[in-house]
Amino acid sequence: MQKIIDLNSDLGESFGQWQMGNDDAMLNIVSSANIACGFHAGSPEGILKTLKAARQNGVVVGAHVGYPDLVGFGRRNMDIAANELIADVIYQIGALKGLASAAGCKVQYVKPHGALYNTIAHDKRQAMAVIDAINAVDEKLILVALAGSPLIEWAKERGLTVVAEAFADRAYHANGTLVSRKEAGAVLHDPVQVAQRMLQLVNEGGVISIEGQFTPIEAGSICVHGDSPGAVAMAQQVRELLQQNGVSISAFAGGAL
Amino acid sequence: MQKIIDLNSDLGESFGQWQMGNDDAMLNIVSSANIACGFHAGSPEGILKTLKAARQNGVVVGAHVGYPDLVGFGRRNMDIAANELIADVIYQIGALKGLASAAGCKVQYVKPHGALYNTIAHDKRQAMAVIDAINAVDEKLILVALAGSPLIEWAKERGLTVVAEAFADRAYHANGTLVSRKEAGAVLHDPVQVAQRMLQLVNEGGVISIEGQFTPIEAGSICVHGDSPGAVAMAQQVRELLQQNGVSISAFAGGAL
Amino acid sequence: MQKIIDLNSDLGESFGQWQMGNDDAMLNIVSSANIACGFHAGSPEGILKTLKAARQNGVVVGAHVGYPDLVGFGRRNMDIAANELIADVIYQIGALKGLASAAGCKVQYVKPHGALYNTIAHDKRQAMAVIDAINAVDEKLILVALAGSPLIEWAKERGLTVVAEAFADRAYHANGTLVSRKEAGAVLHDPVQVAQRMLQLVNEGGVISIEGQFTPIEAGSICVHGDSPGAVAMAQQVRELLQQNGVSISAFAGGAL
Amino acid sequence: MQKIIDLNSDLGESFGQWQMGNDDAMLNIVSSANIACGFHAGSPEGILKTLKAARQNGVVVGAHVGYPDLVGFGRRNMDIAANELIADVIYQIGALKGLASAAGCKVQYVKPHGALYNTIAHDKRQAMAVIDAINAVDEKLILVALAGSPLIEWAKERGLTVVAEAFADRAYHANGTLVSRKEAGAVLHDPVQVAQRMLQLVNEGGVISIEGQFTPIEAGSICVHGDSPGAVAMAQQVRELLQQNGVSISAFAGGAL
Repeated sequence: MQKIIDLNSDLGESFGQWQMGNDDAMLNIVSSANIACGFHAGSPEGILKTLKAARQNGVVVGAHVGYPDLVGFGRRNMDIAANELIADVIYQIGALKGLASAAGCKVQYVKPHGALYNTIAHDKRQAMAVIDAINAVDEKLILVALAGSPLIEWAKERGLTVVAEAFADRAYHANGTLVSRKEAGAVLHDPVQVAQRMLQLVNEGGVISIEGQFTPIEAGSICVHGDSPGAVAMAQQVRELLQQNGVSISAFAGGAL
Repeated sequence: MQKIIDLNSDLGESFGQWQMGNDDAMLNIVSSANIACGFHAGSPEGILKTLKAARQNGVVVGAHVGYPDLVGFGRRNMDIAANELIADVIYQIGALKGLASAAGCKVQYVKPHGALYNTIAHDKRQAMAVIDAINAVDEKLILVALAGSPLIEWAKERGLTVVAEAFADRAYHANGTLVSRKEAGAVLHDPVQVAQRMLQLVNEGGVISIEGQFTPIEAGSICVHGDSPGAVAMAQQVRELLQQNGVSISAFAGGAL
Repeated sequence: MQKIIDLNSDLGESFGQWQMGNDDAMLNIVSSANIACGFHAGSPEGILKTLKAARQNGVVVGAHVGYPDLVGFGRRNMDIAANELIADVIYQIGALKGLASAAGCKVQYVKPHGALYNTIAHDKRQAMAVIDAINAVDEKLILVALAGSPLIEWAKERGLTVVAEAFADRAYHANGTLVSRKEAGAVLHDPVQVAQRMLQLVNEGGVISIEGQFTPIEAGSICVHGDSPGAVAMAQQVRELLQQNGVSISAFAGGAL
Repeated sequence: MQKIIDLNSDLGESFGQWQMGNDDAMLNIVSSANIACGFHAGSPEGILKTLKAARQNGVVVGAHVGYPDLVGFGRRNMDIAANELIADVIYQIGALKGLASAAGCKVQYVKPHGALYNTIAHDKRQAMAVIDAINAVDEKLILVALAGSPLIEWAKERGLTVVAEAFADRAYHANGTLVSRKEAGAVLHDPVQVAQRMLQLVNEGGVISIEGQFTPIEAGSICVHGDSPGAVAMAQQVRELLQQNGVSISAFAGGAL
């Protein structure tokens, strides 16, 4: 039986004259593109350009919604009221849907960004706001959530389809949680090691934890980065090793590459 | 035969903690609400609240798109590139569509705001950008345009449905153009006079110009303001006089009140 | 001996076309005006207007610095890095100093706003960032801090002059801390009661706590609000009762009214 | 007698996570750094970092003020009211002064950016607003203006010290005006040619125009760019050729390198 996995990455993060990442390169690597929606990154003209490129590459697009914090790139926790967060998320998804329809493609999932992603993995109040927002604007949108987080169950209980994701370049604890970036060894830098871990993830359903044991991680998508030449090369390495070993890279939301 | 006219007004212009206008009062007066989309006014939570109130009042909603100029309230001309303007307009329409679907209503038209409204009435480059944006995101959206402006033909040539609008409190020249705000007598302040002019507009198809002649104005909608207690009272006066004289106030985009 | 107290209020909070508060009325009541600096409220043209009015009224001005969160009015906690917060605070103080020199007055103190105010009252990391920012830009600036908070000592240890403030319309616990807004009775609404409490504060050095005992509160300034007609009337009541009882309203930073 | 010229460049244009230009490289080349002030580019933390680096390199700093248009990078003309523009310019200068004092240096000049620069070169209304702003905040600040533009006289009439600047990589007409970027040959790409033209400018007081004649250009500063590796190399070439020919690179506002 053919093994299948999705590769996703954050794209569309340029803002006005400021470039970020290498969207063209990454669109040849990933099957799903998390597109910034203008709150933490992305301006309309640049987002539209990336959406058109994604469509040309057959890459599925999702809404990479974030906190309204451009200067902080959405990486700072904000104690935002539920009704404000709900409206902010709907607004961003709607804006991306509009641009996507102009680009001839369709927003198929939502992956929160940065501090919002980390917060809703465990904070039920903000998590429910994001879940309610998705249900309010389009209940068919799939939510991409941190593998092993309680968010997955909260979203399923409200009827959302959820895809869990693993991070290619991050170490995991034996209990399946991510090693904090504040700890040594949290981020992996060797492309070969990273690619082999992801092959293990797909073939065996887990990776070796920082404590040394095999740790099961149930993930339908692998997040790779494109924010530096080295990151692009690592993502390419992951893709190639998976394909060389018979794994098909294909979007969870449909559309094999 | 029953005469019908639409009354429209700019709503949803509060921003965060800053209130503007009296949306609740105006939703009892108008048949169409031009809802700010966040670029010149409006924040997601407040926009959503106004959309829900519009739906409860059976008021049709449209996207009040503007320049990305919050501090200038979209009233300053900007020399914006066509590809940027196209993407900005699509983004705003999409965001409002998202919020509208969460509120249980549907964006049915687009009315540009402030400096963008005035510019595209005569500037073909920016006009075509707005027209292209509407066609790219949803070609069924109706464009509300200044009565007598070349924009109307440009939009029709591209296949858009256009509704021309008159301004209740503004004086007109004999050639059908608005008297500039810089000239004396440009803005009318007497609610009774304003209401009677609008009755004449509906019944006779025009008003008395500032030069003294009857001037034909072809308009499917009348714009009224709600940005002060006096403005709300004037709008109310317009509605009442029209109704007392057998004119039905009804949205051009469907849905009689 | 003449009793003296300062009254302060948050002014300059309008933004572009959006009005907030009644700066003209409040400038007849207070001796110190906390002027928004553009991050949580205030746009340059409006700030400049308020600074000129403050100067005409002989009211001392201070920098009301906040988080970079306009849509949230600086009321949402943000987990901001120290180097970013330091630069943000310096930037805001500098901007206000520039506008103040154009208005013919001088920024004499700093009072953080909203969530930043509450956070630095007890969070040492962010508190030290604000303290370092003030020292970096102008060590003569006085810091206005919550009476009874550890911030006062932290700032004094770094050489800043600190003025503690009490809130006219807030209840206090017996230990001198504010009753949380989430609890019943936290906010006082009777102008006569509020004025009498502030007279007691000046004359006796404390107020009756929500638990019923007299509670010492060491404060060199009283914060009053002007964000509604009722708030302005209450502030006026506080001023009048104090003056009728021989208390002089005078800025802590110099300049008796 | 020793020939002296100033080299200036736009720095501090990164915004939050978005990098722009190569400030470190350019600070080894220029004698004056035009530092973005947050309206068209630059965020406080990044601006502060560039100011500290400028101080370490002995580079004089000036305020690179722009329109409030981050997404457009201040390159779009805005029809802004005089009182708004005055306050915007004062605010930006003040903010940079604050950050500069924290960095241990002093803002010595003002060079408007992008569309504002081009507009005030000939539009008297906006020009007077910028001039009034500088006079209101600090009349000792030097204004850097386009060589040959009427702005120079307008500013001098109001008492400002003005330094005219030439552009290293731009072609000039025989009448001393810049060849529009819309025309072929407007921008020069050969570093050797550019450097030789600037040597001619310093030694002979002019360059060969696009029409072929020698054209006098009175300039106290030469603008070089650092927004690409090629631009940095060209700037380095200009500096080296000038120095090899005995020209001293020295800030017009004092402080020889």
